[in-house]
Amino acid sequence: MSNPRKVVELFYDVVSPYSWLGFEVLCRYRNVWNLDLRFRPAYLGGVMHLSGNKPPAIVPNKAIYMATDLDRQAKYCNIPLRFPANPFEAMFEKGSLNAMRFVTAVSEKEKVGDSLVEKVSRELWKRIWSTDQDITEPASLSEAGLKAGFSASEVEELLKLAKSQQVKDKLKQATAEAMEHQAFGFPFIVCHMDGKPEAFFGSDRFELMAYCIGKYGFEHVVSRHLCTVFFL
Amino acid sequence: MSNPRKVVELFYDVVSPYSWLGFEVLCRYRNVWNLDLRFRPAYLGGVMHLSGNKPPAIVPNKAIYMATDLDRQAKYCNIPLRFPANPFEAMFEKGSLNAMRFVTAVSEKEKVGDSLVEKVSRELWKRIWSTDQDITEPASLSEAGLKAGFSASEVEELLKLAKSQQVKDKLKQATAEAMEHQAFGFPFIVCHMDGKPEAFFGSDRFELMAYCIGKYGFEHVVSRHLCTVFFL
Repeated sequence: MSNPRKVVELFYDVVSPYSWLGFEVLCRYRNVWNLDLRFRPAYLGGVMHLSGNKPPAIVPNKAIYMATDLDRQAKYCNIPLRFPANPFEAMFEKGSLNAMRFVTAVSEKEKVGDSLVEKVSRELWKRIWSTDQDITEPASLSEAGLKAGFSASEVEELLKLAKSQQVKDKLKQATAEAMEHQAFGFPFIVCHMDGKPEAFFGSDRFELMAYCIGKYGFEHVVSRHLCTVFFL
Repeated sequence: MSNPRKVVELFYDVVSPYSWLGFEVLCRYRNVWNLDLRFRPAYLGGVMHLSGNKPPAIVPNKAIYMATDLDRQAKYCNIPLRFPANPFEAMFEKGSLNAMRFVTAVSEKEKVGDSLVEKVSRELWKRIWSTDQDITEPASLSEAGLKAGFSASEVEELLKLAKSQQVKDKLKQATAEAMEHQAFGFPFIVCHMDGKPEAFFGSDRFELMAYCIGKYGFEHVVSRHLCTVFFL
């Protein structure tokens, strides 16, 4: 009998840089650990509000640390993350509601698999967290959609779909499901093990996650190599 | 030429369970990574106040997560951590000022090395974070001191010393030094690499720390074994 693939849900928002790290690392481990990885685009603003959590950067020393920590972790994981010139504007003033509705529209339209959700999310992360570009305007979302492989007419359709009640409700629903798992921030990773969900917050519990899903050993050693061999 | 040992300072407070994890893991790695590990007992209450940070547990979902996360991490690291029956009382109402003054008195009295600071800290962590015992009363500190190997008369002397201005100032000074490194919580680990301090917050950056100090590879793989082979 073959081992069934473990279902792992990744709740994320492209406004969150730690979510990008978690996303790329899980994408790399997906085959190595034989995961049934499910992307759950959701809205971080909603989770912060509903959980009563505050962004770490409101504590000045945390903000300073976060910049160093992200820089080190991104280098270690070989992810081209760079802070935008004005991170507060990018993260808090402009936000990610339009972007996450757009990703949700892609997930609604994608019938088989999730490679387009993966590609569009990565293109949006690259914009906000690597090349310091907008992710709120229709033109920005279009560019990300085209780079992810959609045609111009498909992108038009996605932009329309992103404004529909159906997509707004789907994004709300994903956010509500994250809250059912008692999220308070992203990335929030839910591993379904023998029917029991085990939640991991952040992008720094992969070693523990591997241990929990019984993948500790060779695969973990490989991780560093996955970081350097593959990327984007 | 032999490689000089890397100086690693561990700022900690026994009220902090994540500090215990960080402390034990660093104690295990000390020889494997050839570290000049320096214990820096400090006062978490002061760091939280001075940095404007708030305890994570004030967000209800974070408190729930922290309990699960600590339980999983402690099992993984083979550390007998158990939540006290009333963690809020233990952490916030009773606090750790007396305990950290006592540890500081030990560090003041210990002329050579730091094995007594290590032992006393571990005994205090065991009390608050394993056997749910008080760490504020003189009798509690005495017990921890005796278990760490001090004689009854030495413990008496330490209790007196812990109340002295000299020790109060030393604890304040250690806390101030953590703040100079822009701490906002504990454990706060400062690695001195080629004259440049690199700070790591929390007990989940050992992989990155190993990478930064050039110890990635065999030693990291060993970590899991260190966890299971040694303990207490």
